[in-house]
Amino acid sequence: MKAEVITIGDEILIGQIVNTNAAWMGEQLSLAGIDVVRMTTLGDASQSIKQGLHDAFKRADLVITTGGLGPTHDDITKEVVASFFGKGLVPHQPTMAQIESYFTRRKRAVPEASRMMAIVPEGFDVLTNSVGTAPGLWYEDNVTGKTRRMVVLPGVPREMKALMTEAVLPRLQQLPGRQTILHLTLLTAGIGESMLAAKIGDLSSWLTDDLHLAYLPSSHGVRIRLSGQGVNADAIQMRLDAFEAHLRTRIGAYIYGEGRNTLEAVLGALLIQQGLTVATAESCTGGLIAHRLTNVSGSSAYLHGSIVAYANDIKVSQLGVEPEAIRLHGAVSEVVVAQMARGVRKRLQSDIGLATSGVMGPTGGTAEKPVGTVWVAYADAKGVETRLVRLVKDRLINKELASTAALGLLRTQVLSRF
Amino acid sequence: MKAEVITIGDEILIGQIVNTNAAWMGEQLSLAGIDVVRMTTLGDASQSIKQGLHDAFKRADLVITTGGLGPTHDDITKEVVASFFGKGLVPHQPTMAQIESYFTRRKRAVPEASRMMAIVPEGFDVLTNSVGTAPGLWYEDNVTGKTRRMVVLPGVPREMKALMTEAVLPRLQQLPGRQTILHLTLLTAGIGESMLAAKIGDLSSWLTDDLHLAYLPSSHGVRIRLSGQGVNADAIQMRLDAFEAHLRTRIGAYIYGEGRNTLEAVLGALLIQQGLTVATAESCTGGLIAHRLTNVSGSSAYLHGSIVAYANDIKVSQLGVEPEAIRLHGAVSEVVVAQMARGVRKRLQSDIGLATSGVMGPTGGTAEKPVGTVWVAYADAKGVETRLVRLVKDRLINKELASTAALGLLRTQVLSRF
Repeated sequence: MKAEVITIGDEILIGQIVNTNAAWMGEQLSLAGIDVVRMTTLGDASQSIKQGLHDAFKRADLVITTGGLGPTHDDITKEVVASFFGKGLVPHQPTMAQIESYFTRRKRAVPEASRMMAIVPEGFDVLTNSVGTAPGLWYEDNVTGKTRRMVVLPGVPREMKALMTEAVLPRLQQLPGRQTILHLTLLTAGIGESMLAAKIGDLSSWLTDDLHLAYLPSSHGVRIRLSGQGVNADAIQMRLDAFEAHLRTRIGAYIYGEGRNTLEAVLGALLIQQGLTVATAESCTGGLIAHRLTNVSGSSAYLHGSIVAYANDIKVSQLGVEPEAIRLHGAVSEVVVAQMARGVRKRLQSDIGLATSGVMGPTGGTAEKPVGTVWVAYADAKGVETRLVRLVKDRLINKELASTAALGLLRTQVLSRF
Repeated sequence: MKAEVITIGDEILIGQIVNTNAAWMGEQLSLAGIDVVRMTTLGDASQSIKQGLHDAFKRADLVITTGGLGPTHDDITKEVVASFFGKGLVPHQPTMAQIESYFTRRKRAVPEASRMMAIVPEGFDVLTNSVGTAPGLWYEDNVTGKTRRMVVLPGVPREMKALMTEAVLPRLQQLPGRQTILHLTLLTAGIGESMLAAKIGDLSSWLTDDLHLAYLPSSHGVRIRLSGQGVNADAIQMRLDAFEAHLRTRIGAYIYGEGRNTLEAVLGALLIQQGLTVATAESCTGGLIAHRLTNVSGSSAYLHGSIVAYANDIKVSQLGVEPEAIRLHGAVSEVVVAQMARGVRKRLQSDIGLATSGVMGPTGGTAEKPVGTVWVAYADAKGVETRLVRLVKDRLINKELASTAALGLLRTQVLSRF
C-alpha cells in the first residue's frame, strides 16, 4: 500500500516548529509495511489543502493528515476534507456528550469553539482521542475506481501518536491481503557502526527481500533493526529469532536492550536488580551523565549524586585527586580519571563511581590530546577500569558520545563483575 | 516570491531522520520575506524527483532541494535536475582542482566517487561549499514564460546551512523588486507567554501588515520576534527601534538577549564581565543546569563545579543541609533549597550558589506539593533569594523548565546585585 503524509500548519512552513510528526508517522507506517512515497507540508489555506489532497490521491491509496483540527479559526482541515469528499458536517453525539461532560464536571459552560470539535464530516468513522478533545477521522470510498483511504489526525504530537497507536495502525494491520511484518530492534552502546559492520557484515548473505537489516546510529549508540515480512507470522518470527541468536553470539556484549528502551532506563533496572548505587564524577560531560540517569523516574533508588568537577581545584578538594597527578599527567589522563572515579565513590558512599575527563572542544586540543580525547573510568570495591575514547570535533556531540561511553562502561562492568 | 522546499532522501520518508533542514530553511526564507507555500519530502527515485520538481514549479518561482548530492549510487539529485532542465553534465574545473588538491595533500589517489562531486549540470552556477565537498547549484531560466529559479543544496545540515547563509540568501536578497525585511528577536526567561501578552498585548494596536510580532515559546524561554518590511530600510529600522524601546520599558527585566543567543551563553559573558564564579547544587534538575552551563565553550572560567544531591544524605553530607530542616519542611522546601545554595557556594568556594529542589513526576506528587512544584535559590555573600515555580506534569519538560527558571534567577540577581 502506498501512503502519503500531509502535515498542515503555517507554523511548520515558516520553520517555527520542526516536523517531528512526519518522521514518527513515517517510521510507524514503514514498520507496518506501508510504503510512504511522499510527505508534504501545507499551510492553513483551504485551496492549498484541497489541491494537496487531490495530488496525493493521484499517487497514494492512503493519505494521512495531521494538524488543523484545533478550535481556532485557522483550523480548517475538517471542513476541507469534508468538502473534498463532497460531504456535509454533522455533530457526532458521543463526542459532544464527552465534551459536555468535561465542562459540566468543571461547572463551566461549554465554549462554542469546543462544541465545534464534535462536528465531523458525514459518513466518516470517528476515532476516539484518549488523551485530548479533537477526535481522529477515518474514511474510505472507491468512487474513483480504486479504494481511497483517508485518515485525519490532530497535530499535537501526543494526541497524534495515541490515535495512530490505538486506532489507525491496528486498523491498517487488519486490512485484507496485508503481509505480516515483524521487527526486532537491538540497542547497542560502546561500538561504532563500522566496527559493527566488521563483526556482523558477513551475516548479510542471510538477508533477502523479506529479511532486512538496518544500522541506525545516534549519539546514544547504534540501533540494529531487523525486519521480516511474509504471510506466515510464525515463520517470520523463527527467522528473526535465528538471526538474533547469531547477532547475540557475535556482538552480545554491546547489546543493552531492545525496542524503544534507553540505556539509562536499562541501567536503572540493572542497578535496582543488583541492589547497587552509583555516583558520577564529571569533568568534560559537565553533569550530562547525571542528567541522563535522572531522566528515569525512580532513579533516586540508585543514583546517590554527582560531583561536576570542572575546575582542577574541585577535582582535588571534592574528589581527592592528587595535585601531583594533575601536574604530571594533566587532568585529561588515565591516572586522574581513575582517581576521580574512586574519589566520588568514596565521597558519596556509593557502590560504584563513574568518571569522565576529556577535551570537548572547540578549543583546548593539543597534538597529544586533540579535541575529542576522552578518558572514562569505572570504580567499585574491587578495582578500577578505564577506557580511552576518541570522539569528534563538535562540543555538544562529544558530550553526548562521552556520556554514552561512560554509561556503556558502567553496564558492561556491572554485568561482568556482579 | 513563492518558494517550495524539497527534501530528498528515503531516510526521511521512513522516519530514520527528522527533517530539521526543512524547518531551518523555512525559517530563513520566511525571514527573508519569501513565502514558503509547500514543503515536500521525496525518496531517492528519479521519476519521483522529476515529478516533484514539475509539481513545485507549477506553484512556485523558486524551488530549493536539499539532499542526494553525496558520492553513492543513491545520490541522483544532480542527474535528475540536469535532465529536468534538459541539460547535460559537465566537469566544473575549480571544484575538480579543489578535490584533487585535497587528496594530493593527503598523498592519496582521488577516488572516482569523489571526482563525481565535481560534475555539474551545464549552465548552472556553482556555489562554493566552504565546509564540505559537494558544491551547491543555482540556475534560472524563463523558457516557460515565467522566471524559474532552482537551487540545489547538499543534505548534510552544516553544509546546507553554510551554503544558504553564504551564497543563497545574499543572492535572493539582491533580486530586483524585493522589499527589505528586518527582524529583531528578543529572548526572555522567567515569564510565560500569557503573562507577556498581559504586559505588552495592548501594543498590538501599533502592529500593521508590515510590522508583525510573534511569540515563540520553548522550554528555554519565550522568544519575541518583531518583523518589519518595506522599501526603506532606515524607516523600518526606526519603527523596530521605537517598538523595541516600548517592549524594553514594559518587560526589560525579562529580556536576556537578542537573536540566536542562549541564556547560558549570555550568562557566561555576564559572569566573565563581573569576574564572578558559580557552583550549582541540583536535586530535581539532576545535573541539567551544569550540563547547560558547560555547553558553552570557556565555561570553566566561571563554573567551578556542581553537586548533584539526589539523595537526602548527600544534601546533608555534601551541602551541609540540616537534617532537621528536611524532617520539618521536606526536601522540596524553601528552607532546604536556600541551605543547598548557601552550602554549595561555600563548599565549592564560589561567589554564587544556585540550587533546585522539586517534584518532577510522574510520581511523588502530593496535594500540598503536586508534580511540577519546584523551589530554586540563589545565594551570594550578601544573602539568599528563593523562588517557587509551578510547572507541568512531564518529567523531562519539568527538568528543562526548572533549569531555565534557575538560570533566569541567576541572571536577574547578578544584574541587580553587582
